[in-house]
Amino acid sequence: MALESLRYRRGSLEVLNQRLLPGQLRYERVGDVQRAWAAIRDMEVRGAPAIALLGCLSLAVELAGGAGPQEDLGALEEFVGQKLGFLLSARPTAANLGREAERLRGWVRQRVETPGVTPEELRESIIEYIEGLLEKDRRDNRSIGAHGADAILGGLPRGGPVTLLTHCNTGTLATAGYGTALGVVRALHQRGALSRVFCTETRPYNQGSRLSALELRHDGVPVTLIADSAAAAAMRLHGVHAVVVGADRVAANGDVANKIGTFQLALAARHLGIPFYVAAPSSTCDPTLASGGLIPIEERPGTELTQLGGVLLAEPEVDVWNPAFDVTPHELITGGVITERGLFAASEVCGELAERGER
Amino acid sequence: MALESLRYRRGSLEVLNQRLLPGQLRYERVGDVQRAWAAIRDMEVRGAPAIALLGCLSLAVELAGGAGPQEDLGALEEFVGQKLGFLLSARPTAANLGREAERLRGWVRQRVETPGVTPEELRESIIEYIEGLLEKDRRDNRSIGAHGADAILGGLPRGGPVTLLTHCNTGTLATAGYGTALGVVRALHQRGALSRVFCTETRPYNQGSRLSALELRHDGVPVTLIADSAAAAAMRLHGVHAVVVGADRVAANGDVANKIGTFQLALAARHLGIPFYVAAPSSTCDPTLASGGLIPIEERPGTELTQLGGVLLAEPEVDVWNPAFDVTPHELITGGVITERGLFAASEVCGELAERGER
Repeated sequence: MALESLRYRRGSLEVLNQRLLPGQLRYERVGDVQRAWAAIRDMEVRGAPAIALLGCLSLAVELAGGAGPQEDLGALEEFVGQKLGFLLSARPTAANLGREAERLRGWVRQRVETPGVTPEELRESIIEYIEGLLEKDRRDNRSIGAHGADAILGGLPRGGPVTLLTHCNTGTLATAGYGTALGVVRALHQRGALSRVFCTETRPYNQGSRLSALELRHDGVPVTLIADSAAAAAMRLHGVHAVVVGADRVAANGDVANKIGTFQLALAARHLGIPFYVAAPSSTCDPTLASGGLIPIEERPGTELTQLGGVLLAEPEVDVWNPAFDVTPHELITGGVITERGLFAASEVCGELAERGER
Repeated sequence: MALESLRYRRGSLEVLNQRLLPGQLRYERVGDVQRAWAAIRDMEVRGAPAIALLGCLSLAVELAGGAGPQEDLGALEEFVGQKLGFLLSARPTAANLGREAERLRGWVRQRVETPGVTPEELRESIIEYIEGLLEKDRRDNRSIGAHGADAILGGLPRGGPVTLLTHCNTGTLATAGYGTALGVVRALHQRGALSRVFCTETRPYNQGSRLSALELRHDGVPVTLIADSAAAAAMRLHGVHAVVVGADRVAANGDVANKIGTFQLALAARHLGIPFYVAAPSSTCDPTLASGGLIPIEERPGTELTQLGGVLLAEPEVDVWNPAFDVTPHELITGGVITERGLFAASEVCGELAERGER
């Protein structure tokens, strides 16, 4: 059984504290929204889909425990809205929690306006709605994996086996299960069409070495760990067929915000003629931002670069610039964007998805 | 006074153990060639010029202490040759120690053939020859700094101040003093023409965070530390005017082997229209290798990626590919190669230097 980022059952939520990996596998109780907010900010859990799920599920746990107004529909709606707004303040870049919060608010609004709904029914239906997100994420990731495997194998003259390169962690630990870019890796492995996947270390938080290498090895997928700086050399010397990464937000024009380093991976891939894919659920699209330059980029503390588990890597006083994400222009996403609804050209993905409407 | 990689006086040599930086500043005695070999292999000292100097100076210390044959010119020549050959086996990629060893051997050969030279005179003159290398390295680095500052300022419409980006460590800690790429940084700073230099962390050995940031801060140079993955974003968002790196070997066609990650920095610089310079002494040229693909690339242990000072970064059993260097094709070195003898187009540097002959 794969490692899980979250363990949920009605009224109970636990998060795998990823800060302790790979040394320690510890699930910690998340009893309320406040605790989820801290887990997101402190990166006990990360990955845009997992952040969205943890946030929403922590609200479901509060509601199941009887938190918030009992008697008044409007007051309960306001309570939910406030909790969601607070969750959004934990980290600024990922789109998914914002999209899910917006949809949930809209759905609650509709329910409140539906004649005859009691506060108790509203509470129950919000919990069920959120539980549905968990299942949808798993289902969507399997679709992303299948579409991605089709796209990558279809683009090769001989159909595989393929060598991939990925960045950061986009697997079971970044989602409710299976993964987005790592879902594509898993799908190829399950088809017997994966030769090897190179995982970058992904400094400064080491999601590649601590998380991706761990979860892939756990599932028996052939994985090789490299320094972030070795990516272009690996592409050139090890016959990498495709680069596949996740996304934290996709702007309307198809520019992609993803883990810092994605931009230079895309440049290396283009130089070497290797297709570059982004794999992400459709909720990653943010049609409200015209281009990537408008995506807010979180800057994290310099201590992530000056120390590591008590080991001093640089003088503590040194000036540090530590952006968590960068923006890859859509024209560098040469393979396209793989969503649960298929493969799209980066410049068309948000428009196409909007046109087809919500499922 | 700047930090020194080596402390030498006749008969005595100490090396700053760079593995302990930035936490601890400790010089350790190097009494013989065997100890220098271990210091090079274990990366207590690194940087192509410093490796060459440490190796040659350890031989000078042995000779000053009376090691080797006393009575016979030919036997002393053979002793020196064997010691140099052994030193070359410590690490395979850097050219400088090989070039210096070859020149020293040729020079010893001449001396042996000079009528009337006694073994004692030969011994003394070898020691003096090696001591001259130390002075030459410092002098050459100041020339590299001046030529580099001229080239970078000359290439800008308004002449500065400039923002630079560099990789790995090429400063006082990688040379006998001043530095190559960091010599260019220092020269610009001394002219009041440096706004800021971005130093990459330089995984997996962290030469940027542990060494470059340390020595630049020590000298009052404005420095900002970034993750290796943040280099392209820094170039795009922070107005970087030029990228300057060192070199471990330059092939006849101008392809450059340098610290892993250099290749992708050069790709990012070209994409963003930022000139990319290599700064290195002329001894880095290896005209015996036609192109970069022939340069032997050292692969280092996977443990450099799986642990750090006792902290576990990945499961110890994970497969790792850990090349210490990569090769940047000459056409990506858009600024040129800065040597102590001036600025050259990468494709012409080895040929031009050979044509002009040794000084």
